[in-house]
Amino acid sequence: MSKKSVLFFVLITAFSARAQSPQQRVQQYRKAHEIALMDEYRQFLSIPNVSADSTNIRKNAAFIVQMMQQRGIAATLLDVPAPGTNPAVFGEVKVPGAKKTIVFYAHYDGQPVNPKQWAEGLQPFVPVFIIAPVEQGGKIVTTYKSGDPIDPTWRLSGRGSADDKAGVMTILNAYDALVKSKITPAANLKFFFEGEEEVGSTHLGEIFEKHRDKLASDLWVIADGPRHVSGKRVVQFGVRGDVNMHLTVYGPKRPLHSGNYGNWAPNPAMRMVKLLASMKDDNDKVLINGFYDDVVPLTASEKAALAKVPNMEASLKKELGIAQPDGNGTPFVELLMRPTLNINGMQSANVGAMAGNVIPTKAEAVLDLRLVRGNDVARQTGRVMDHIRAQGYQIIDHEPTDAQRQQYPKLIKITMGHGYNAQRTPMDLPIAQEVIAAVQTTSPDPIVVSPSSGGSLPLYLFEEVLKANVVSVPVVNYDNNQHAENENVLVQYLWDGIEIMAAIMLIK
Amino acid sequence: MSKKSVLFFVLITAFSARAQSPQQRVQQYRKAHEIALMDEYRQFLSIPNVSADSTNIRKNAAFIVQMMQQRGIAATLLDVPAPGTNPAVFGEVKVPGAKKTIVFYAHYDGQPVNPKQWAEGLQPFVPVFIIAPVEQGGKIVTTYKSGDPIDPTWRLSGRGSADDKAGVMTILNAYDALVKSKITPAANLKFFFEGEEEVGSTHLGEIFEKHRDKLASDLWVIADGPRHVSGKRVVQFGVRGDVNMHLTVYGPKRPLHSGNYGNWAPNPAMRMVKLLASMKDDNDKVLINGFYDDVVPLTASEKAALAKVPNMEASLKKELGIAQPDGNGTPFVELLMRPTLNINGMQSANVGAMAGNVIPTKAEAVLDLRLVRGNDVARQTGRVMDHIRAQGYQIIDHEPTDAQRQQYPKLIKITMGHGYNAQRTPMDLPIAQEVIAAVQTTSPDPIVVSPSSGGSLPLYLFEEVLKANVVSVPVVNYDNNQHAENENVLVQYLWDGIEIMAAIMLIK
Repeated sequence: MSKKSVLFFVLITAFSARAQSPQQRVQQYRKAHEIALMDEYRQFLSIPNVSADSTNIRKNAAFIVQMMQQRGIAATLLDVPAPGTNPAVFGEVKVPGAKKTIVFYAHYDGQPVNPKQWAEGLQPFVPVFIIAPVEQGGKIVTTYKSGDPIDPTWRLSGRGSADDKAGVMTILNAYDALVKSKITPAANLKFFFEGEEEVGSTHLGEIFEKHRDKLASDLWVIADGPRHVSGKRVVQFGVRGDVNMHLTVYGPKRPLHSGNYGNWAPNPAMRMVKLLASMKDDNDKVLINGFYDDVVPLTASEKAALAKVPNMEASLKKELGIAQPDGNGTPFVELLMRPTLNINGMQSANVGAMAGNVIPTKAEAVLDLRLVRGNDVARQTGRVMDHIRAQGYQIIDHEPTDAQRQQYPKLIKITMGHGYNAQRTPMDLPIAQEVIAAVQTTSPDPIVVSPSSGGSLPLYLFEEVLKANVVSVPVVNYDNNQHAENENVLVQYLWDGIEIMAAIMLIK
Repeated sequence: MSKKSVLFFVLITAFSARAQSPQQRVQQYRKAHEIALMDEYRQFLSIPNVSADSTNIRKNAAFIVQMMQQRGIAATLLDVPAPGTNPAVFGEVKVPGAKKTIVFYAHYDGQPVNPKQWAEGLQPFVPVFIIAPVEQGGKIVTTYKSGDPIDPTWRLSGRGSADDKAGVMTILNAYDALVKSKITPAANLKFFFEGEEEVGSTHLGEIFEKHRDKLASDLWVIADGPRHVSGKRVVQFGVRGDVNMHLTVYGPKRPLHSGNYGNWAPNPAMRMVKLLASMKDDNDKVLINGFYDDVVPLTASEKAALAKVPNMEASLKKELGIAQPDGNGTPFVELLMRPTLNINGMQSANVGAMAGNVIPTKAEAVLDLRLVRGNDVARQTGRVMDHIRAQGYQIIDHEPTDAQRQQYPKLIKITMGHGYNAQRTPMDLPIAQEVIAAVQTTSPDPIVVSPSSGGSLPLYLFEEVLKANVVSVPVVNYDNNQHAENENVLVQYLWDGIEIMAAIMLIK
């Protein structure tokens, strides 16, 4: 380039920098770097991230450390001595003169995968572009290679693509886009990427306690969960709590021929269905004593916010193929403010081509209970166990001994995940209002303000241990199949997410 | 050997032949050939025999043809033009002066296998010896090689080892042992080995009709099913009928996050458990209208025979780890004379480490209905479908269309296997009594005479199409895990089975 052209280029850059909003400059930076951003993200998604796979979890953490270092953020792992802990990745950027400190949270671990359940051509840890959800016949972009233009209406498939490596990706690239666009963040920034969210944040409380000083802040921004079903951007002020219960009911010690023992040997699948069926009435109201007793009613401002959330039920019913939702006519948004009892999965022997004419030896089911403000994990699971005992079951927490099998006609093993309670942040805090305003700057479309997500995060820990204010700002599409096969993220929402996170970094 | 020794040997052989009963001579032949008999059987079990695997099914048929040819029996395949038919293997031996013709039946196909469910070290199609059932801690005889002595208390593992290649093995070796021991069978013998029993004998009726003349007989002897739980030899005069129903209940078209949609999106697993639970009361009595209506009461001689069957409930309860059997106190043998509704298997999403917090897209269950005399497959399954409709379900026989999902709040897909009705042979027929007497010659222990097996075979076809008399003479151990993982046969029972089948071949 000649000296003249250099001068011209500098002038143009300076001019456009002056004329454009920070959001436009972040967007321009992203547009110029889409290929590199996506190449790096695909590489990130190629590292298996099932929470229990600690070897690969460490590789993910190392990859994030590297991403941060490349962006000039000193990164460290926050660990605790407990064996089997997945470390959190932490980083910090101090801004001279900043009055506030904001911590950006995402988690890099993912739910378990059953590769057989993924659509043909999709694998959990081989990210590929699809032109639409595979459930809607979306085809794989088989010809894509790095450097090709990326259609923003495509989706990128893979475990963690939406839940929640998208949080890590948008947060770090938002910061990078600001820096590279010569925009200084207005707040001190901290970054905290958890590695145990999908197993109930087993050690998060310990990590918080050990590193309490490092994590001091005015606000935590949680980049997790989906944008509203309408596609609108959303700010959420709470989450439901969650706990898993794993149930196993026992039949004969060995599988029996269903003809030679049918009518005599108890069938554990029949026992399990009768037990589970006893837990809900025909309108899907939970019949367990006291299940709804502890629920704290919504505040006036929460009710007002709920009333403004767009009603998407008609389009959801159509998209999901649901003729009649549960809840006996109660609006969707209100149902999400109540506790749940959900069957995550169940199995006994085999179905389909592998089914045999047998009386199975056991039947398993996994429940998840979502908790709302007022519920307590121990109290709520205790009620479920009381209900199970009232059906005549003896509860054990290990495989039954021969003596127990002889003694108890109805035996059930119950093991529980590491659950946690719900959390809600008051919507009228000044900093809460500033987040709403910041996110609103990224779109002319009114954003959705929600008192609580239907989903869960251990945000009660942030409140209890760190005394922190917590607000969730989701970035991914609602139809991302998170926690299931064919998980995917809409490319445009990654791009939007970078702008949303950058806007929050400019809160003064 | 000198001429003198040869003469001596001949004399000894002639003497021992004179002094010994046919049973003793068959036993002596077997003892001298155990290694070869077992080597051939292990080779037979190594050929996968899942009914749907037609390539390997043909290899099994070819192996049986070879076994028969080596024993001097001309063998042919009985086929019908219907595509996908597994052929029956047929052979015939005419005995000069014989007055009766007896057909020996077994089936060489096996139930589906899920190798992951087999114990460590056991594979469905790699037969190995175990010293006891693996469920009782039985170890694999890892050092065994052909030529080593075989302990008759061992078991040989593998799909089909008991159900029902054991039938083929004992029948053909019984004939061979007679011939090699210079004992002429008293009846004309026919051999019929089916290849579709485990999928409901789909083409058996057609095969019977096409080959009716070849199959003319005075008696069919069915070598299938287990000996009595007490270990006693058994002759059975009937079987229950059987039909499978595969049920699929639908939820949302894609798996949903249980937090973001919980309480709103219907959970198909909950729907399925409520549906299945509605089919039985707490005493496991079937609640489906008319389910027990068609049952023909037992005759006086059937009742008398049942009364003599040893009561094994106490030892079975202990062995199987059952504190309280179903049936509200009705004796085991009577329960087997009633129709059943059994859950063979069920599945929705995942359990255990692969479980995610999802609302599944579907829940599947497989039922098997055992039918007794008086029941009809179409009528009985029709009652189940009426019951399902009465629970508000729309029944379809294919995956639902979008329009059907929109229209019907409760959709269920039902597909059915090829089922069949029960069969009973009158116990007082002279030839029936001759079979009882023949089997009794093989043991001083009184044999068990049973009006009907709890298990099923399509014996009604033998009666309807061939107008045949049918009696079942099981040879394998009751604790053989047939239809399930870790299937096995007790070696001594194979040896006994050869003697039992040989005894029947001597009926005049």
